Amino acid sequence: MKILVLNCGSSSLKYQLIDMENEAVLCIGLVERIGIEGSILTQKKDGVEGKYVKEQPMKDHQDAIKLVLEGVLDSTYGGVKDMAEIDAVGHRVVHGGEKFASSVIITEEVEEAMRKCSELAPLHNPANLMGIDAIKAVLPGVPNVGVFDTAFHQTMPASSYLYGLPHRLYTEYGVRRYGFHGTSHKYVSQRAAAMLGKDIADLKIITCHLGNGASIAAVDGGKVVDTSMGLTPLEGLIMGTRCGDIDPAIIPFIMKKENLDADGVDKLMNKESGVYGMTGISSDFRDISTAAAEGNQKAIDALDAYHKRVKKYIGAYAAEMNGVDAIVFTAGLGENGIEDRLAIASNLEVLGVKMDAEANNVRGKETVISAADSKVKVLLIPTNEELMIARDTLELVK
Amino acid sequence: MKILVLNCGSSSLKYQLIDMENEAVLCIGLVERIGIEGSILTQKKDGVEGKYVKEQPMKDHQDAIKLVLEGVLDSTYGGVKDMAEIDAVGHRVVHGGEKFASSVIITEEVEEAMRKCSELAPLHNPANLMGIDAIKAVLPGVPNVGVFDTAFHQTMPASSYLYGLPHRLYTEYGVRRYGFHGTSHKYVSQRAAAMLGKDIADLKIITCHLGNGASIAAVDGGKVVDTSMGLTPLEGLIMGTRCGDIDPAIIPFIMKKENLDADGVDKLMNKESGVYGMTGISSDFRDISTAAAEGNQKAIDALDAYHKRVKKYIGAYAAEMNGVDAIVFTAGLGENGIEDRLAIASNLEVLGVKMDAEANNVRGKETVISAADSKVKVLLIPTNEELMIARDTLELVK
Repeated sequence: MKILVLNCGSSSLKYQLIDMENEAVLCIGLVERIGIEGSILTQKKDGVEGKYVKEQPMKDHQDAIKLVLEGVLDSTYGGVKDMAEIDAVGHRVVHGGEKFASSVIITEEVEEAMRKCSELAPLHNPANLMGIDAIKAVLPGVPNVGVFDTAFHQTMPASSYLYGLPHRLYTEYGVRRYGFHGTSHKYVSQRAAAMLGKDIADLKIITCHLGNGASIAAVDGGKVVDTSMGLTPLEGLIMGTRCGDIDPAIIPFIMKKENLDADGVDKLMNKESGVYGMTGISSDFRDISTAAAEGNQKAIDALDAYHKRVKKYIGAYAAEMNGVDAIVFTAGLGENGIEDRLAIASNLEVLGVKMDAEANNVRGKETVISAADSKVKVLLIPTNEELMIARDTLELVK
Repeated sequence: MKILVLNCGSSSLKYQLIDMENEAVLCIGLVERIGIEGSILTQKKDGVEGKYVKEQPMKDHQDAIKLVLEGVLDSTYGGVKDMAEIDAVGHRVVHGGEKFASSVIITEEVEEAMRKCSELAPLHNPANLMGIDAIKAVLPGVPNVGVFDTAFHQTMPASSYLYGLPHRLYTEYGVRRYGFHGTSHKYVSQRAAAMLGKDIADLKIITCHLGNGASIAAVDGGKVVDTSMGLTPLEGLIMGTRCGDIDPAIIPFIMKKENLDADGVDKLMNKESGVYGMTGISSDFRDISTAAAEGNQKAIDALDAYHKRVKKYIGAYAAEMNGVDAIVFTAGLGENGIEDRLAIASNLEVLGVKMDAEANNVRGKETVISAADSKVKVLLIPTNEELMIARDTLELVK
């Protein structure tokens, strides 16, 4: 069975074609600038030199998906000979609200429910829906599956998902903690159990998804009990351009100082903050690390604050679960930030964590990076959300 | 030496007259509704039955302070025979910004600096300044000392006090973490060291000031390294009417939904949230506990969320300090909430905490409430901010 995995943004689209016989990626691609001048599709195939590029106008996601299908049919860079070989399409959907605690086959009712969640993710869900509609038009009859970023977190108890706000904001507008990156947290927590040769039901795992967006989850017995992102993907850690946790009173304070409206302050917190705002240098942690190494004080402070925030969440979740068996690092910085992992997980003997600096000197492959005698295992596990989406899709359509 | 301690709010004033020979409270009083119809002063004296009440118009703090001085001179309920016996006045000041890392004798320059901090505490600092001006008018020549709620927290490193926000917000407007309740955190951390018979320099202490306003501090070697309140006293724990930590993106979301401006959402977060907003019952934790015991689900959820938040901060600070020797509970709920302390500090074996339910069955007196074999000592210590203010005042004027 061959499954196409789609991750649609408002003007971009990432895709992979996966052969579920052996979970091999047949081809992988990216479409950028959909509906904008300069639309471009780039596709690669493992083991084949060069790349497949289509630079032509795409007025919408349907145009883009037509080209994606041409790409996956390409004799050199594609993965199938005939469209009929595509058995199902798995869609990443950002916000499933309280409606979706697991992946589902997309029906009219599901689309309607997704539309209702759009209010909670106005930038993401409409794009995901466009992708679904485009597939339905181009590949009629092929089953579509929705895999929600929020689903894995739906096991959180009320004490974790309720905010200290008037209760009617929850009942009227759905203001609560949802959490994101759920597909990644699920994948790496399951891989962690496999690497440790244990039943996930017996493990307390803290998963640190540290990318340009970043979140942490406390996974007790395979179920999320808490996570750092909230109603939106802004809460929690300091990120590339997002502020994460701040004193909420700062917002009205700054709005008055800078004469900003609600959208203005939202943009400031989501696009102009994080390590980018703290340093004025870049939203890319590699640039911040370089500047810090050169002695730039703002970069040093930003990294210190970033590492400390992650460390504090690890402590908070260890307390919340009354224990931790494994800490997992994943995503861009989690997989490649050798110094960052060391800064975060060193000096954590209070929790039974002891790093192995030599073992940690690795990028992007499954590795135990704690010392042999560390009570808590620290693991580096590259995430694979696309594979997880393909697996969920297979499960529902087979 | 006799010291008058003043804590001026916008329309209220709390005071104590303390004899520093033996740190005895000579009399204690409260003025309410200053500048409002129904102004009233109530004063008590330890060991004397009844109370001293003055119900008469007070148009401002100077009027109130004149009556305070009449009160402390009262032959039955007062503490001095002559105003000349008052050697100094210690003032609680809410916000000292970055300017004041310790208590100071109030000069013209200090008052000017306090005025500059008013922007950061617009409800509190102007009231504190009114109290100082009133004392200068009524007790000319008597030294005034300012003791700042923020001062004890000024030892925090940049990685604790910087937010993930554009750096210019710090340099232009002073947007950073300051922390509050510093006088209380200082008092109970020093008492904790005394109770344990150890040098505070060798201790890692987490102090939980759980009143209607609530904050936690991580005190390493006698110095604060982190605390939960921030630019304002809104951040951190869920409180009586304050929301504490939330996804900052909730604020623009709610402003648009409810058509609120900056002041409107500030009021919602500070006055209409916390356990009051979560339950619709009360801002008093005793009422919430009663409702929870009767099976009210919102009250149960609010208390669970409250306890979990405190527990998570304890875990976060233990991780940040890489250890914790003592956890201290103080202030209203911390001193009297038997069930609350148990809910917070139970199931924390991961940190080496083991409670003694029987020892914990106590209110308002210095007690070790952890089990004899608990690696981390858990202490109940009634706070005494007024004594701390008097001690700092004595130190500066003697």
